[in-house]
Amino acid sequence: MPKYNARIYVTLKPSILDPQGRTVERALSHLNHNNVGGVRIGKYIELSLSGERADVEAQLKDITENVLSNPIMEDARWELAEA
Amino acid sequence: MPKYNARIYVTLKPSILDPQGRTVERALSHLNHNNVGGVRIGKYIELSLSGERADVEAQLKDITENVLSNPIMEDARWELAEA
Repeated sequence: MPKYNARIYVTLKPSILDPQGRTVERALSHLNHNNVGGVRIGKYIELSLSGERADVEAQLKDITENVLSNPIMEDARWELAEA
Repeated sequence: MPKYNARIYVTLKPSILDPQGRTVERALSHLNHNNVGGVRIGKYIELSLSGERADVEAQLKDITENVLSNPIMEDARWELAEA
């Protein structure tokens, strides 16, 4: 069966406050990086799957939306590449 | 001054155990996603910077290596795009 590598990116929706990002931004400002703004911290997930491409795509969509992200607060996107 | 958007990806080095990834993998297996393996969980950070390209690149390298990641345990890479 073909093998695939997936990369999943989960980010907070733009309207949701990101206190972790704000903290990093403040820390950077104290380190004299005053030209840095808009820090948002998300998740980056790598995994591998085996199966037929169409099945794997449907499965990855399901996993991304129902297990790895919270669609109320987060956006998620994924990339799939043959291993 | 030109503005740039940066994306930074921080992942655990391959030799470092990833208990969070293992937990997700086990959860997926319990949900009948038995063809999924090698789950690794990293960080995805977005930020914006202003300045000249060469300065911004040097600054981003410094921030990525010294603030946003721990080079002992983590690999980090970044992308820069004009805003």
